[in-house]
Amino acid sequence: QDPASQFSPKQKLQEQSNTLDLLLPSREFAQAMDQQDPISHLRNDYFFPTNGSLQQTDISLVEKDEPCVYLCGNSLGLEPKETPTLVQEELDKWAKRGVTGHFDDSPRPWVSIDENVLAQSAAVVGAQPEEVAIMNSLTVNLHLLMVHFYKPTETRYKIIIETKAFPSDHLAVISQLLFHGRKPDDALIEVKPEEGSDIIDEAQIEAILDTEGDSVAMVMLSGVQFYTGQLFDMERITRAGHAKGCIVGFDLAHAAGNAFLRLHDWGVDFACWCTYKYLNAGPGGIAGAFIHSKHAGDVTRNRFAGWWGVDPKTRFEMNYDYKFVPGVKGLQLSNPPVLQTVSLLASLNVVKKTSMAELRTKSALLTAYLEVVLAGCSTELGKQTLRVLTPSNPARRGCQLSVLFPENIKPIFEQLERRGVICDMREPNVLRVAPCPIYNNFEDVYRFGEHLKASIKAVHGK
Amino acid sequence: QDPASQFSPKQKLQEQSNTLDLLLPSREFAQAMDQQDPISHLRNDYFFPTNGSLQQTDISLVEKDEPCVYLCGNSLGLEPKETPTLVQEELDKWAKRGVTGHFDDSPRPWVSIDENVLAQSAAVVGAQPEEVAIMNSLTVNLHLLMVHFYKPTETRYKIIIETKAFPSDHLAVISQLLFHGRKPDDALIEVKPEEGSDIIDEAQIEAILDTEGDSVAMVMLSGVQFYTGQLFDMERITRAGHAKGCIVGFDLAHAAGNAFLRLHDWGVDFACWCTYKYLNAGPGGIAGAFIHSKHAGDVTRNRFAGWWGVDPKTRFEMNYDYKFVPGVKGLQLSNPPVLQTVSLLASLNVVKKTSMAELRTKSALLTAYLEVVLAGCSTELGKQTLRVLTPSNPARRGCQLSVLFPENIKPIFEQLERRGVICDMREPNVLRVAPCPIYNNFEDVYRFGEHLKASIKAVHGK
Ligand SMILES: Cc1ncc(COP(=O)(O)O)c(C=O)c1O
Ligand SMILES: Cc1ncc(COP(=O)(O)O)c(C=O)c1O
Repeated sequence: QDPASQFSPKQKLQEQSNTLDLLLPSREFAQAMDQQDPISHLRNDYFFPTNGSLQQTDISLVEKDEPCVYLCGNSLGLEPKETPTLVQEELDKWAKRGVTGHFDDSPRPWVSIDENVLAQSAAVVGAQPEEVAIMNSLTVNLHLLMVHFYKPTETRYKIIIETKAFPSDHLAVISQLLFHGRKPDDALIEVKPEEGSDIIDEAQIEAILDTEGDSVAMVMLSGVQFYTGQLFDMERITRAGHAKGCIVGFDLAHAAGNAFLRLHDWGVDFACWCTYKYLNAGPGGIAGAFIHSKHAGDVTRNRFAGWWGVDPKTRFEMNYDYKFVPGVKGLQLSNPPVLQTVSLLASLNVVKKTSMAELRTKSALLTAYLEVVLAGCSTELGKQTLRVLTPSNPARRGCQLSVLFPENIKPIFEQLERRGVICDMREPNVLRVAPCPIYNNFEDVYRFGEHLKASIKAVHGK
Repeated sequence: QDPASQFSPKQKLQEQSNTLDLLLPSREFAQAMDQQDPISHLRNDYFFPTNGSLQQTDISLVEKDEPCVYLCGNSLGLEPKETPTLVQEELDKWAKRGVTGHFDDSPRPWVSIDENVLAQSAAVVGAQPEEVAIMNSLTVNLHLLMVHFYKPTETRYKIIIETKAFPSDHLAVISQLLFHGRKPDDALIEVKPEEGSDIIDEAQIEAILDTEGDSVAMVMLSGVQFYTGQLFDMERITRAGHAKGCIVGFDLAHAAGNAFLRLHDWGVDFACWCTYKYLNAGPGGIAGAFIHSKHAGDVTRNRFAGWWGVDPKTRFEMNYDYKFVPGVKGLQLSNPPVLQTVSLLASLNVVKKTSMAELRTKSALLTAYLEVVLAGCSTELGKQTLRVLTPSNPARRGCQLSVLFPENIKPIFEQLERRGVICDMREPNVLRVAPCPIYNNFEDVYRFGEHLKASIKAVHGK
């Protein structure tokens, strides 16, 4: 059960405010929340850029040595302090052992280095370890999984995605259709929010499946929508898709390490994710892939094959007598990238100190607090107000809030940057703000609010 | 022109031996050759494992602090000393800049970090920089390229590969055939050496093309065969394939950084390679891909698409108005893996101090010297002799020699390991030995010979 659906974070904050006798939008309240936070110490496991180390900061406006306000884990998560150590250990091994590092007695022999990140990756997405492979990049995995699962027939060939999907997903799906000689006009069903709404109701997807389901080969949605921050009810969508005989897969780029996922229990057919956002594995970090164990024995599906998908016991015999590893590991193509893998390991070592349930509980509070703080900023805009596109229901969003401004965001964004605030702008007028429970704290959110007010003031020339 | 085809390395060695008045198989001769070597200093740019740092060494047999005899660059090349520095620079950037490292003023902004390795990679394979992409892993690239280039029709659908191709290539090709509903029995043409020969004559490929060429969609061979060490005449094969209207591609895993390549001039359609062997980018290093510029304008081919193949100017507009980058860069799917890319950069920074022509010239001499040394070892085997599978013509091989033993190789291999010799064994009886011109020297080859003699002696109980 998703902890975020078990309580009202807004109410919890209000109760705390009453108990502590502190105003919600106050530094004192934020600090008191941080003191109560059972995982606040995890922040110390990460390098925080300081205001002074960022190129755009104006250090006449903020303290040079203070950590910046980093609310951008939806784009690139922060670096765990253990990362350089683990990376250097592998470089040392290479220097001292050469090729023998693949098999020798050193910790984490390279030939099976991915085994060090499987169990924890599986825990993050709610899978069994044998349902998960850590390999390649996100879009590569999406293609390899579609090669495996998208097999159009004359009557069943359509793909359902959400409108304004991340371009790489849109491109991947479209190019798969074209590859199979299908026209997107006919074969791509893009689910759009109802008129006047920003988000997609799962009932809409059910309705489409009801009418067109028999022609749908695959439902491929994001877990958390990158633009709106909506968290789809994946269990419900999977159920609806399966009822019509469709394959259901998810791109978890914005969900892995953010949402409370139970891929196995939900019966999701496949999923893939990147690790550079909420899993803090660094720029261009290695990606993940999931195939449900119910498909593991299935040898009828297509695959693009490579030697790393072959049973390790026979892989080096090189005699063409191939036995694929069952499930997603059978889609592995190449020997694992060592630096990328240990970079993920360093990050998962922090995750291991807590749990997705604990992170999710804090996340619900942190993002609810961001909502409170944003409401306080609206007043600076005069008659106009900020509008949050992201669902207000904590169970239907991750940590990110997408905030629609009544004016072009760029000048305000630049002011934020000058004050050492790092978040993500989508022109013309959306700011995406993502407090990450593993390293952000309530005071970050409070400081964000203060800087946002000051930024709006600076732009409006008050 | 391949420098190795311009002179006789064997004759050159003999002349030097006469001039220096030193016996060919002697440490003094090897050392004298190293002194004359204009690029001998590049060895200092690499970390050499010492005898004592290797797990298998018996330090009662060899000096603990002496560099091991590393002749295994065909499997994993050695680590450049600059690698840890460049990797740490990116980790620092991540720590200090967070997501802004993608675009900010730091050296090598991540968004275009691959641009730092394109020119030199292109030089290594004889391509124009816009014909090369550095991305993914080898087998992934092979699949993406086959998606682009292998489009079977009713009459033209066969693929030619060499027999005993590396299993990953074999698997990749077979799985592509199956994906398109073709049976390998019918659609896969495996070229075998003539009875009694170990190597494939290019004339055989021409003959097959002559008779079956009209049904052949694609010729996909390795540049240097991993098992025999044969270097194919890629220019000649490309010409023969094109004469019959086939696409011609090469897996350059064992050729890139080893052979003298002119992909552009030869008109090769596509190629891919890994960088962990002769390009010293580390275990699971990033891979390369080449598409000839003549195909750059072609928008009719299939592709598996992703956002990184889209014109960088529009990539972040996220408005579905996609313009692909022409050529191989249009097949890029994902944002680049930073640590992997700088690891390759460190290695190419050494290559930049020399040239493939200079490396190849030294390589021809070094491998010819290995032949001499091996001949001296045969005598230890009694009546039996070692037989080199690799072509004796220096223009038809890279640096590797594949040596067939008259007995099971394993006990000898273990003796070699005890003496700090690292090379590659293919059971039951082949030893692959690869002196790399960029970091190996003549004395390494001499020492290899001494250790091999001692190892044979130890096994034969003399
Ligand atoms: C000729 C050849 N092809 C393919 C591969 C597999 O490469 P990767 O695991 O990098 O995909 C290798 C690896 O040694 C190889 O030698
Ligand atoms: C939802 C989604 N899909 C795909 C991608 C592209 O990922 P990659 O470049 O890792 O393939 C991203 C990157 O931000 C994303 O957010």
